[in-house]
Amino acid sequence: MSFSVTILGSGAALPTVQRNPTSHYIECNNRHILIDCGEGTQMQIRKAGVKFQKITHILISHLHGDHFFGLVGLLSTMHLLGRNQGLTIYGPEGLEQIIRLQLEVGGSKLDFSIDFIPLFGTENKLLFEDKMIEIHTFPLKHKIPTNGFLIKEKQKDRSIIGEEFKASGLSLMAIPFFRTGKNFVDDNGEEHFFEDYTFPSKPAKSYAFCSDTKYTETIIPYVSEVDVLYHEATFTEKEIDRARATMHSTAKQAALIAQKANVKKLLLGHLSARFENDKKHLSEAKEIFDNVMVVKDLDVVSV
Amino acid sequence: MSFSVTILGSGAALPTVQRNPTSHYIECNNRHILIDCGEGTQMQIRKAGVKFQKITHILISHLHGDHFFGLVGLLSTMHLLGRNQGLTIYGPEGLEQIIRLQLEVGGSKLDFSIDFIPLFGTENKLLFEDKMIEIHTFPLKHKIPTNGFLIKEKQKDRSIIGEEFKASGLSLMAIPFFRTGKNFVDDNGEEHFFEDYTFPSKPAKSYAFCSDTKYTETIIPYVSEVDVLYHEATFTEKEIDRARATMHSTAKQAALIAQKANVKKLLLGHLSARFENDKKHLSEAKEIFDNVMVVKDLDVVSV
Repeated sequence: MSFSVTILGSGAALPTVQRNPTSHYIECNNRHILIDCGEGTQMQIRKAGVKFQKITHILISHLHGDHFFGLVGLLSTMHLLGRNQGLTIYGPEGLEQIIRLQLEVGGSKLDFSIDFIPLFGTENKLLFEDKMIEIHTFPLKHKIPTNGFLIKEKQKDRSIIGEEFKASGLSLMAIPFFRTGKNFVDDNGEEHFFEDYTFPSKPAKSYAFCSDTKYTETIIPYVSEVDVLYHEATFTEKEIDRARATMHSTAKQAALIAQKANVKKLLLGHLSARFENDKKHLSEAKEIFDNVMVVKDLDVVSV
Repeated sequence: MSFSVTILGSGAALPTVQRNPTSHYIECNNRHILIDCGEGTQMQIRKAGVKFQKITHILISHLHGDHFFGLVGLLSTMHLLGRNQGLTIYGPEGLEQIIRLQLEVGGSKLDFSIDFIPLFGTENKLLFEDKMIEIHTFPLKHKIPTNGFLIKEKQKDRSIIGEEFKASGLSLMAIPFFRTGKNFVDDNGEEHFFEDYTFPSKPAKSYAFCSDTKYTETIIPYVSEVDVLYHEATFTEKEIDRARATMHSTAKQAALIAQKANVKKLLLGHLSARFENDKKHLSEAKEIFDNVMVVKDLDVVSV
């Protein structure tokens, strides 16, 4: 079981020498997902030592340039590196046209297929699941339609206590019952209780991504109890008017969401280029929610 | 008089940690020009300490992504930094649509005007001139229509030898004659010779940019005698077949063009990501043309 988030870009609309525009790479139980893809993401992927071709799903939150201008370059590079495995891209309508047009003018034809799945910034729904993970989207509130994302491990079945089971002499047919939390009735009609032969697996972990958004408590149900919440914190309270005008959040507001949603850990990012360091963000958030971290480019956070 | 080229990106289609995709910034007599704008150019501009807003002309050679994917991000950043001065962009047809579409989906409206001037990769012509510089384009030969560029200082007028002129007692009206290399006839009908009162200004300098192109001697007349020639050298002779197939050049071929065009200095760039260093390129070119340099990101070359 592995679950980590690599911060490829932690900056906002104006990239700086320290902070590239937004992109997060998520590895969850050997599934490889990219969320947002600001300009320069492919260079950051190289710096982070991430393997381009393992990525199978790309999620784009919205069509402000600092969240998608790097996508076409990444796709070109995947092609040049010989990719032939298909790719699924979830993002706002219009994204497909932009990407296809840019590839077309250069005479490029990708050697792999892309499924573009349109998102509208209005729905809370399951986008993808397999036996290991689920990907959900939920609406944020920003100047244009914007999607939040939730990546969850699938809850694993209960684990068999080997010694107890062996000593019982029960048929192997009991195992699927016990692992899924059901009792087993043997051929003699005797009931055997799953708690006696199993213990619960570790709780499934989850990561939620909220960028960009104004402060809105409507997102709390979607991110409730997650292990790691990333919430944008473009500004601090001193710039609250600017935050309201641009439909962004302050560090304090992000911390309030984390507190009210009872998450375990909060990551702050998307810091405006005006801030020379993250001290104000950190102290402001810590007053509300203690387990907070202001992310930097190339940080790797374990979920 | 100042004339320098800052290499913002020296790599080819696949950017590496060391080499960003192509972009050159040219400062010539207080004129500020960007040639090509691969992904990440705006971050390189910051690293190089170039002032975004001074740039008035952007020249895009062709529509392969490693030469223009960074343009929309640069324009967005110029807007966010408060630009209101107009900008002229010379580039292939289709570029304007790509840029406008990407800005439109994000709901951005730039606060400055852009003149898009289409180029077709077929013409040798003057694009722009003022009292200090000229910008020309000329055709290269690549897989899609591709434009080379030539930036020239305007030849300055001759300089007056102050002491000689003063001692002559001639009217100030003689000065414009002498500076432009004409003799002056005074009111008494006496002819005064410009050579006696002036010396020639320094020769006007010039910089030519050739990327991407196969080896073609058709470009020699356009770059003849320039002070600095940048010529792509994606490969070395060992990969000559690959160079032919992709319509790129080898270091040796670039050196042959420099030699035949009798340029003063040769810059090589656009090195394929397969090369770990520039040793092969340098030694191969030096066999043909001695004053050669393989450029690196953030090199500044005086013209």
